[in-house]
Amino acid sequence: MSFLPADAPTGRLLGRIALVGAGPGAADLLTLRALERLRTADVVFYDRLVDPAVLALTPARKVFVGKEVGANSWPQTRINAVIVAAALAGLRVVRLKSGDPSVFGRASEELEAARLAGIPVEIVPGITAASAAAASLCRPLTERGQTERLLIATATCRPGAVAKVAAGFSAGSTLVLYMAMHRLAEVEVELLAAGAPADCNVDIVQHVETSSERHLQSRLQGMAQAASAAGLGNPAIVLVCWPLAESVRMPAEFQKLALCVTDSSRI
Amino acid sequence: MSFLPADAPTGRLLGRIALVGAGPGAADLLTLRALERLRTADVVFYDRLVDPAVLALTPARKVFVGKEVGANSWPQTRINAVIVAAALAGLRVVRLKSGDPSVFGRASEELEAARLAGIPVEIVPGITAASAAAASLCRPLTERGQTERLLIATATCRPGAVAKVAAGFSAGSTLVLYMAMHRLAEVEVELLAAGAPADCNVDIVQHVETSSERHLQSRLQGMAQAASAAGLGNPAIVLVCWPLAESVRMPAEFQKLALCVTDSSRI
Repeated sequence: MSFLPADAPTGRLLGRIALVGAGPGAADLLTLRALERLRTADVVFYDRLVDPAVLALTPARKVFVGKEVGANSWPQTRINAVIVAAALAGLRVVRLKSGDPSVFGRASEELEAARLAGIPVEIVPGITAASAAAASLCRPLTERGQTERLLIATATCRPGAVAKVAAGFSAGSTLVLYMAMHRLAEVEVELLAAGAPADCNVDIVQHVETSSERHLQSRLQGMAQAASAAGLGNPAIVLVCWPLAESVRMPAEFQKLALCVTDSSRI
Repeated sequence: MSFLPADAPTGRLLGRIALVGAGPGAADLLTLRALERLRTADVVFYDRLVDPAVLALTPARKVFVGKEVGANSWPQTRINAVIVAAALAGLRVVRLKSGDPSVFGRASEELEAARLAGIPVEIVPGITAASAAAASLCRPLTERGQTERLLIATATCRPGAVAKVAAGFSAGSTLVLYMAMHRLAEVEVELLAAGAPADCNVDIVQHVETSSERHLQSRLQGMAQAASAAGLGNPAIVLVCWPLAESVRMPAEFQKLALCVTDSSRI
């Protein structure tokens, strides 16, 4: 197993696996618990979207498992096998995932593999992109009396299936879409067909909490064209707000955002 | 203003307000950014559910604003007024909220008050209770091919209104309810009436990530009675999982949880 450090411990009892949420990007959005797991890890298996500044916090051997579409990606079964093998070799394994492992993190298969091998496993939660995007926009995901439900969905879930992102989207909801930029035109049509008002507020936050964060504000009707014109793509978060009352959709509401403390560039 | 420290700075430029997510309870689930804001704050206004271990991390003056039902609670307008007044006096203000301020955190009114007063304001995201509960249960909120939507709702949103928690709940969804324990019987009826299978898996996590965390596993039908028999109440998180395939609802699935590393007591 080439990923094992040269000084891998021998004779130590069973290792353990922590599925650790790295948060959206910025290293200071790690939790203290995540930092502790990184600092005491023997080996860290990380994904494409994990920020280098986060990786710099761990002295462990770092292994890129390339969860991206196309060449150089590791199949999930191989990831499962190596994290289990490392733990069986007595190592403290961190499986580092961007955001929160519980939200579209494909944690189930790794948890299952660890359990079947009898290895203690834990999830260390992370800040999910929806929370980070809302913080960056300085606008909550729910607003008392206006949006009382939060719906989180993805457009890229099952292989071969097109997720129905509009299911359950109704007045009083905020819809947050993960990894939906490549089919934003379809999403726009689907949401409008489901009855969402054409002037629903839309915010798209690309590369949230990284140095290249960008923000686009739009209305639902026209959002795909606006995003395309701005050259936005994944990874990005799309927030669609369908409030209970018309008044909240007033453009003037957004002028008040100017004082929000943020370093992100605005389109 | 009695909450000002005796050595409040004079002549300093305008202060600032950070709405900081304290996370679910455990101090090590704070983010590094939240910790930095706490350490450099002049005054911290905190809610009922914020853990004393989190408060111990800040040298700032601490003011309890008692957001709870009944006596000793501060009306929202008073909270708005004092945080703005403190910032206008040049102080670095932290408004510390349990969980994530963006999710049922009533942040809008405080953001608005700060903006109207011309005070720089930011949101520091926190681990929301849904993420913490999933991590504690060692089971993701979404599972590829089974639950592809996450629906977060509360049963106590608008004064005088009963939230419709079942809106949008369908096969392929995980529903997470915040602060719903006092009307769990109604919720059960509503979800069953909406067509949710009687044998949907339900997990209730009370006091997540605190020393008194408790966990109850149930089926949808009978969950209110089971929770009542166990003496569970708010604050708790209710997770209802309605997978796409029947097989996931097999009881055997849950036996594998035994290896999950956790310190919480299980009912």
